[in-house]
Amino acid sequence: MSRQILCLPGDGIGPEIVAEALKVLDVIKQLFSLDIEVSHALVGGAAIDAEGTPLPAETLKLAKQSDAILFGAVGGPKWDDQPMANRPEKGLLGLRSELDLFANLRPAILFPQLAAASSLKAELVAGLDILIVRELTGGIYFGEPRGVRTLENGEREGYNTYVYRESEIKRIAKVAFEAAQKRNGRLCSVDKSNVLEVTALWRELVSGMADDYSDVELSHMYVDNATMQLVREPKQFDVVVTGNMFGDILSDCAAMLTGSIGMLPSASLNEKNQGMYEPVHGSAPDIAGQGKANPLAQILSLAMLLRYSLGEIAAADAIEQAVGEVLDQGLRTGDIASEGCRVVTTAEMGDAVVQCL
Amino acid sequence: MSRQILCLPGDGIGPEIVAEALKVLDVIKQLFSLDIEVSHALVGGAAIDAEGTPLPAETLKLAKQSDAILFGAVGGPKWDDQPMANRPEKGLLGLRSELDLFANLRPAILFPQLAAASSLKAELVAGLDILIVRELTGGIYFGEPRGVRTLENGEREGYNTYVYRESEIKRIAKVAFEAAQKRNGRLCSVDKSNVLEVTALWRELVSGMADDYSDVELSHMYVDNATMQLVREPKQFDVVVTGNMFGDILSDCAAMLTGSIGMLPSASLNEKNQGMYEPVHGSAPDIAGQGKANPLAQILSLAMLLRYSLGEIAAADAIEQAVGEVLDQGLRTGDIASEGCRVVTTAEMGDAVVQCL
Ligand SMILES: CC(C)[C@H](C(=O)O)[C@@H](O)C(=O)O
Ligand SMILES: CC(C)[C@H](C(=O)O)[C@@H](O)C(=O)O
Repeated sequence: MSRQILCLPGDGIGPEIVAEALKVLDVIKQLFSLDIEVSHALVGGAAIDAEGTPLPAETLKLAKQSDAILFGAVGGPKWDDQPMANRPEKGLLGLRSELDLFANLRPAILFPQLAAASSLKAELVAGLDILIVRELTGGIYFGEPRGVRTLENGEREGYNTYVYRESEIKRIAKVAFEAAQKRNGRLCSVDKSNVLEVTALWRELVSGMADDYSDVELSHMYVDNATMQLVREPKQFDVVVTGNMFGDILSDCAAMLTGSIGMLPSASLNEKNQGMYEPVHGSAPDIAGQGKANPLAQILSLAMLLRYSLGEIAAADAIEQAVGEVLDQGLRTGDIASEGCRVVTTAEMGDAVVQCL
Repeated sequence: MSRQILCLPGDGIGPEIVAEALKVLDVIKQLFSLDIEVSHALVGGAAIDAEGTPLPAETLKLAKQSDAILFGAVGGPKWDDQPMANRPEKGLLGLRSELDLFANLRPAILFPQLAAASSLKAELVAGLDILIVRELTGGIYFGEPRGVRTLENGEREGYNTYVYRESEIKRIAKVAFEAAQKRNGRLCSVDKSNVLEVTALWRELVSGMADDYSDVELSHMYVDNATMQLVREPKQFDVVVTGNMFGDILSDCAAMLTGSIGMLPSASLNEKNQGMYEPVHGSAPDIAGQGKANPLAQILSLAMLLRYSLGEIAAADAIEQAVGEVLDQGLRTGDIASEGCRVVTTAEMGDAVVQCL
């Protein structure tokens, strides 16, 4: 039976980079005789424009039926005036929640060919390879109650709820401990347990699991210090696990350290290894439609998809190798351009990867 | 009538660096004929040890009576097992709240003598001078309800509340707009308004005030992007304003960019310009009592105190100049040591500043 991939290009540069990933997928299907069916649906601003809602029922239905989702990006100034419940981001958040994609894996890897692009000194980032494990379906992103109310004195007050229960904390910690076992055996759990009760519970539970993973060296850091340490000496980290909000911040910080945020893929998995795969970067509306976007994060997201949700390791390896070769050839999109390299368009970059396959 | 300064050395390296700042104050009082009375009290872990509570009533009473507070640092592993309500940090948080010190000013300045200490490339941080304005008495730090409850299924659940009302947002935005007017006229407000209702209200209100400050160029950034932009190109920022939690993270990140977190002071002010002044760095229990701590952030906090709460501009200038001279002489504590410089102890550094005065 053929496997189902749902493509959700979304907004901004989403459609143009997803198009390049699909070129790559076509070739990979032939090379590895894979029986994969690709369908398409609308999400985010594109879905608001067409159907008035960022996550149409049809999209959600297709998503639930598919083995994996290749996601582009959502959002843009066009939809900034939408009410909170109908923003493009709700398409993304709705998918994460409805499919229970609680485990967000965000590698921050420095590509040796792009070492000069980091704003950090070369010796601090050479060989950098961090994995941020972010809880993705709980915390303050989804906590209730939330909203804006009017107080007795007539003032408005906005409020959100940061909430985690035991089972949510334990299942994401398990993913992180296991990832550390497969990597360099170090796990740093990030919280603000000196101030926030919810993260004190987080720390207590993660600590309590350490005995079950005696091959993993567990440490804890407050989120303010973790951000500092990422900037000061990023290579001290192997795997970092944290909640939804802190994970949003720390993963972007870690990604930026590599200087190549246009290069970084991510995976969001549920307990069945169904997954959604998307670039770490956003929809970049300022350069959308100009052929300037870097499609490599999207192409590497496809590689992650093949690896994690379809188990096609060889195909994933082939894509990652091809991306490396393209960089070796000196091809660069504008975001990673440097002297002596050839600047290419989005499509040229996609074609070059296909060529290398 | 003499002005009152309350000294709260706290824990870890707090007492030793406050001692150096007091040496400096003694000389300054003579040089500028200042009538200042200094009293001392306990806070944090030191207060827990002596009185069983991190913020004894006597300390709070003295704090309220004083014109300004010189604060060291609180916290350490010794008190990690204290229940949340009795942690050393509650001493600090209680003072902020009880004195209504809502405006936390955290400058992130690169000292030219220490340029090499930054982990960022020199050209990205040369001349860096950012002011983070952090809301300090609201948000998720103080929001109710909070705690840990047991659910029907027997699981525990931790929860905190992120809450801001209109008046809280407007008064901190006012401080930030006015700071931008006195600096380079640029203000960036940081939120997560695409996900959190409380920060959507924040963005709406800050935007609404822009017309009153037509000489300030206002921009908005999501917190994940702001962290990236701080690492990518920090000099794009002049003043940054944000809530308590994001401000905790961003100010530490910005401080670390300078490579000299041991050098950075901060001020926490209320509407009456009563203020608490403390180093941005923490209590560093690992090096406490060894004479290794850098007292300059504490000494510069004293300068800020003289400037903001006592209006003694000339005295503040003198201290800041003396600190510059000491750095010019090549004296360094371990945290900022580099080749060709002389490594000195905490006390030697304090003495050197006194000499320069
Ligand atoms: C678009 C936004 C809702 C999203 C998030 O905050 O999770 C994005 O920043 C991300 O990190 O995937
Ligand atoms: C010690 C802690 C409670 C405090 C905070 O989070 O505000 C500290 O990190 C700070 O930034 O002053």
